[in-house]
Amino acid sequence: MRPEEPTAVFLINCPDQRGLVASISSFFFEKGFNIISCQQYSELSTGRYFMRIELSLSDLKTSRKKLEADFAAFGKDFGLGWSVHYTDEKQRMAILVSKTSHCLYDLLLRWKEKEIDCEIPLIISNHPDLESVANQFKIPFHCLPVSKETKTEQESEIRALLESHHIDLVVLARYMQVLSSGFVHEYEGRVINIHHAFLPAFQGANPYQRAWERGVKMIGATAHYATEDLDEGPIIEQDVQRVMHEESPEELKQIGRDVERIVLSRAVQAHLEHRIILSGRRTIIFRR
Amino acid sequence: MRPEEPTAVFLINCPDQRGLVASISSFFFEKGFNIISCQQYSELSTGRYFMRIELSLSDLKTSRKKLEADFAAFGKDFGLGWSVHYTDEKQRMAILVSKTSHCLYDLLLRWKEKEIDCEIPLIISNHPDLESVANQFKIPFHCLPVSKETKTEQESEIRALLESHHIDLVVLARYMQVLSSGFVHEYEGRVINIHHAFLPAFQGANPYQRAWERGVKMIGATAHYATEDLDEGPIIEQDVQRVMHEESPEELKQIGRDVERIVLSRAVQAHLEHRIILSGRRTIIFRR
Amino acid sequence: MRPEEPTAVFLINCPDQRGLVASISSFFFEKGFNIISCQQYSELSTGRYFMRIELSLSDLKTSRKKLEADFAAFGKDFGLGWSVHYTDEKQRMAILVSKTSHCLYDLLLRWKEKEIDCEIPLIISNHPDLESVANQFKIPFHCLPVSKETKTEQESEIRALLESHHIDLVVLARYMQVLSSGFVHEYEGRVINIHHAFLPAFQGANPYQRAWERGVKMIGATAHYATEDLDEGPIIEQDVQRVMHEESPEELKQIGRDVERIVLSRAVQAHLEHRIILSGRRTIIFRR
Amino acid sequence: MRPEEPTAVFLINCPDQRGLVASISSFFFEKGFNIISCQQYSELSTGRYFMRIELSLSDLKTSRKKLEADFAAFGKDFGLGWSVHYTDEKQRMAILVSKTSHCLYDLLLRWKEKEIDCEIPLIISNHPDLESVANQFKIPFHCLPVSKETKTEQESEIRALLESHHIDLVVLARYMQVLSSGFVHEYEGRVINIHHAFLPAFQGANPYQRAWERGVKMIGATAHYATEDLDEGPIIEQDVQRVMHEESPEELKQIGRDVERIVLSRAVQAHLEHRIILSGRRTIIFRR
Repeated sequence: MRPEEPTAVFLINCPDQRGLVASISSFFFEKGFNIISCQQYSELSTGRYFMRIELSLSDLKTSRKKLEADFAAFGKDFGLGWSVHYTDEKQRMAILVSKTSHCLYDLLLRWKEKEIDCEIPLIISNHPDLESVANQFKIPFHCLPVSKETKTEQESEIRALLESHHIDLVVLARYMQVLSSGFVHEYEGRVINIHHAFLPAFQGANPYQRAWERGVKMIGATAHYATEDLDEGPIIEQDVQRVMHEESPEELKQIGRDVERIVLSRAVQAHLEHRIILSGRRTIIFRR
Repeated sequence: MRPEEPTAVFLINCPDQRGLVASISSFFFEKGFNIISCQQYSELSTGRYFMRIELSLSDLKTSRKKLEADFAAFGKDFGLGWSVHYTDEKQRMAILVSKTSHCLYDLLLRWKEKEIDCEIPLIISNHPDLESVANQFKIPFHCLPVSKETKTEQESEIRALLESHHIDLVVLARYMQVLSSGFVHEYEGRVINIHHAFLPAFQGANPYQRAWERGVKMIGATAHYATEDLDEGPIIEQDVQRVMHEESPEELKQIGRDVERIVLSRAVQAHLEHRIILSGRRTIIFRR
Repeated sequence: MRPEEPTAVFLINCPDQRGLVASISSFFFEKGFNIISCQQYSELSTGRYFMRIELSLSDLKTSRKKLEADFAAFGKDFGLGWSVHYTDEKQRMAILVSKTSHCLYDLLLRWKEKEIDCEIPLIISNHPDLESVANQFKIPFHCLPVSKETKTEQESEIRALLESHHIDLVVLARYMQVLSSGFVHEYEGRVINIHHAFLPAFQGANPYQRAWERGVKMIGATAHYATEDLDEGPIIEQDVQRVMHEESPEELKQIGRDVERIVLSRAVQAHLEHRIILSGRRTIIFRR
Repeated sequence: MRPEEPTAVFLINCPDQRGLVASISSFFFEKGFNIISCQQYSELSTGRYFMRIELSLSDLKTSRKKLEADFAAFGKDFGLGWSVHYTDEKQRMAILVSKTSHCLYDLLLRWKEKEIDCEIPLIISNHPDLESVANQFKIPFHCLPVSKETKTEQESEIRALLESHHIDLVVLARYMQVLSSGFVHEYEGRVINIHHAFLPAFQGANPYQRAWERGVKMIGATAHYATEDLDEGPIIEQDVQRVMHEESPEELKQIGRDVERIVLSRAVQAHLEHRIILSGRRTIIFRR
């Protein structure tokens, strides 16, 4: 359940130890906060502890800076890694696309319905095809064509745009270009890609054709954080759809579109709602 | 994740109010407990707060009685409704069946695999058909035939058996007899029934035949606590399976068997793991 | 698999009897047709036989009239009920909406992607809200407000519009008005409605609120042909989505949107591809 | 829908060409057969045509030998590859297991419920653990322990048993030994294996551990025909189950058991009901 009032969300990642729930919840209780939700997970194999705690901002009696400083001081003893997010500070999301519109439309329609809560200052593409979609939703569209020769230069232009628009999250909504490792490193944990297969099966190009040839009985899609190794990043969300022998590779592609768009949108929602913590290559996804 | 060591599970149901997480978790922390897991849910429409908190019993420094008395005293101020369960005190489950074996087998196989953790001192049936199944798993089998005339008497015999075996949970694994309201009241929240339809659709008899006639495209099953009104009790678990026009009513029944057994087993697991709290006619089901 | 070339589709409904496949397929073979696909179903309980047979139109050596006359003559002995459809004669679909856009968008996006193959000469609504969506896709939008007093008159206007645009299929994409029995009779088997519940559960108004109160663990949607009795018409497609106790009625509604739109679009596709035959209150849905 | 009377099932695989449905159905019609069901599939990319046609055996006026000879003569012109199966000649299935019982139980329970229709003359294992399960169902159990040194010899013993019992289908129900390529060649298309992952992901050993490490959000199982390359054979059936970050590798294994057993049983059913035709590495699976 998403609270309607503005909240502060703390994401915590630390060595597992006694008294974490009691100490952390007491810290906030003593500061006068109502705890709206508090979720935890202890990972036995790594000995790590993960927590998501959400507080009503109307209870905040100091500045946000002060709260953060106090929490930092408090957290030292426990070795807390943490970040805090305020839901009234809207995140800024850029969408990168090529020619295919289904994922873009799905994101924009959910954004219009307020299922996806953020600002979308721009859409970037290496092709002009989807400009009219951007226009329908009144979002500025930047067409930055790319060739082998201009690859580095075009990526610099993208990064300049992302920077000047203070972008928090980059969504590759079927953007068919590989990003440089420099880019991916700088935006680690902030670039979400949709791969049109059930990873780790069918990494790389033409997954539907290869799925058809292998004769699989279900096709899938995977949303993951982008990393240097293509299609190897931490998985955020996956889903599948049953297919039959009658379906041609072309029809698998069509069926796959429904899976891709729903998987990507769920991943973007989880990220924007601060429900994801990374644990190495795995993702902890707290439920709404 | 089910912890392997013995634990104490507190299930709490109270008016929502400030400081519940902090106070309750501090109560246990100060008593020296490690909190293994702590889950909450605030129901806005009823203003109720629900919590499941699980503690390592190896941290218990007093008697269980003392712990309970201390928690009762502590909980008064908050108006806590609560119960506590110790996982090293095995619950005792009775299974009631008629002639159909699929749900019985599923429960017994999971019990053998330790997916279902309890004792099963007896199986009761109004027909002799499944005695050999009970024998395979070395569980005493009681055949108590029933007719219109002997209904009250037979139920008394069942209740006597349940009592003398100190039964905590009664599972109606396709037991095709209606229980008296007296029985259901006495065992409120402790009798789980499987209905072979996706409630509230197709309440009552012959759901597969009626589903076929209505031409539904999915058939389902529902596990629920038994109440006076047949098929009206709080729902614990549901699932469905897609069907096609080719399937005859007889085949729907066969397909349905797979749904029934998995739905019933999941409900029984949730109950035995103390993951269910009732909120009126709704169930709060905490995840493992 | 949808063939790319123009085809003729015969839908046949007759008493089951020996030699139907051989006789019918031979009829077409002798006329020089390549049979692209041929699907059958014998319904034991009614003794009816259903067939869908698809032929390449490039093999047609006579006029369509002549083919139909020949088939009618041939079919008499077998008591064939039948209809024929030519995929190069595009069907004309009208969409009726109120204020909610998700089903409308889904239909229009699939139509643009050519997943839904028809003409859409107009969108009709009792509210002005979705005019901009219609504009985005360059489809004429007719706003016909309605009140208790003007109900009959407004429906007449709708029927006049449908007639003057030679509409083959009317899709109620969350059009929140009940149609008169006269309308429904005239357009029998040609009006598809989406109900936002898993019928026959939660017929009528506010299904998500009632689903929440009943505490169901899955919510669903049902696409069906409209009949006089609201929500009682033959079911074309259904699907469900798992929900948890945390989800509020408002969130069930949001989750339900994804189910509704996919269920409605699949039903519309099946109808437009001539894959549905009615058998009383049940639908035979041949697969692609 | 499975017919209750004995039938003959022809499985046909040939180059696609005009008149196949008409010619084949007429062949049987002229011999006096009622066609119970007739299913086809044209594979565009390979130009192959596949048909499954099922006939009532009560219509057979000649010997089975004569029917086969006549059909062989008829089929020559069309280049038909074909096989025929009579449902009153029960197939004989051997089950190979190691220590894990869930797939074995599932097969045996469905066999007892007559969902799986065959004879099971023996169960073979390299461990003694499951003998009691075999005993419950009164099926002879052969324990053939195996070590690196005795591998060849033990396989010979297995083959001798299969031969002397005239086995038609070998089911590897979590038999954890690799078969020799000689064995696999001899029994091509007659050995079904269950792999506990969603192939082609996680081929080889320890798939649940690796799935956990990769952080996938769904785990699956795959039933396939065994071939020389382990886990590379034609896929018959797949399914998946959603998992969360909380689930340990051990719990993935438990959840996976439910997927494995249902996937294997569906594959075995499809094979025994003569609903599978191989097309290279792909399987054509006709529906019931």
